[in-house]
Amino acid sequence: MARKQGSHADITGPRLREAALRLFARHGFAAVSMRQIAAEVGVQAGALYLYTPDKQALLFDLMRDHLEDLLADWAPPEAPPLMQLESFVRHHIRYHLDRPDLVFIAYMELRNLDPANFAVIEGLRRDYETRLEAILRRGRAAGVFDVADTKLATMALIAMLTGVTTWYREGGRLDRATVEALYWDMARKAVAAA
Amino acid sequence: MARKQGSHADITGPRLREAALRLFARHGFAAVSMRQIAAEVGVQAGALYLYTPDKQALLFDLMRDHLEDLLADWAPPEAPPLMQLESFVRHHIRYHLDRPDLVFIAYMELRNLDPANFAVIEGLRRDYETRLEAILRRGRAAGVFDVADTKLATMALIAMLTGVTTWYREGGRLDRATVEALYWDMARKAVAAA
Repeated sequence: MARKQGSHADITGPRLREAALRLFARHGFAAVSMRQIAAEVGVQAGALYLYTPDKQALLFDLMRDHLEDLLADWAPPEAPPLMQLESFVRHHIRYHLDRPDLVFIAYMELRNLDPANFAVIEGLRRDYETRLEAILRRGRAAGVFDVADTKLATMALIAMLTGVTTWYREGGRLDRATVEALYWDMARKAVAAA
Repeated sequence: MARKQGSHADITGPRLREAALRLFARHGFAAVSMRQIAAEVGVQAGALYLYTPDKQALLFDLMRDHLEDLLADWAPPEAPPLMQLESFVRHHIRYHLDRPDLVFIAYMELRNLDPANFAVIEGLRRDYETRLEAILRRGRAAGVFDVADTKLATMALIAMLTGVTTWYREGGRLDRATVEALYWDMARKAVAAA
């Protein structure tokens, strides 16, 4: 991303988002004040309002950007369904392991979104789910997947994969490549035709 | 449970827990005050302290009782590993669909537990995971499961199954029996030997 030299907006904006993300993840959206966020960024509380209208807008921006980035970062390759599924699974694991705080907030703070914002976030989430479901449908039509209900299987696979963020620790017993391979193995088998 | 007639403690205690659970789930632990909980129960704030030392104790009790109930409610049947796994999966789905608020809080409010309380909750959670892992180990030893890492497979299966609470709605497109059967099908295949 281009950054104008000496522009406070270009520097403070990202720092503000990082501070908000860190505080929301640690204490929860409802428990964090704009004053605390300002202190974390190192500016006066009043200065925050140059960058964001309110805390709700901060939360919404974090969630929307997370999902838009996720959607922009991956598209199904031109390939048979099994290879598309492998690409989806491996990308999902990598992407989510890189952003545990965002994943946690994007799930946990849904209840704190205004209805209009909630609708936008739900739409983006559904777009992502629809991509996986399309792969499962194609694979079922081709006879390589045996999935009784593609919507349920989509939700089950995404929950299984996203759960990696709740237990994986960098430098732990299993390295990332192994974790990714093991999840792919389970996902593949879970939807495989007999 | 026996209930003494006319005992306020026996009536207010459960109502207090229900109110706390409802409010924590809706607004988050950090955003809810003892005063709000008292108002929800319909008593003076001071009266709450007859039943609980503080908000932290309320949260800890909810989580501990949830996990102790879960552990008390299911034990592996004397059966081959595949039947034990089926029993675990079906019970997990049923139990969690009955308690979406508790499931949400037990995951989301872990960060708000005092360290000593966190250690107790983590221990109970591990006891539950260990039961599933033992089934996977037995099945692998018997050659009916193909699981490269039983710990990872345990976490993956539990995340997949628990995720049902994020999308299932009573009276929706799929009934409970179907949902349970479809999750069991995916779980079975995910760990099956080729």
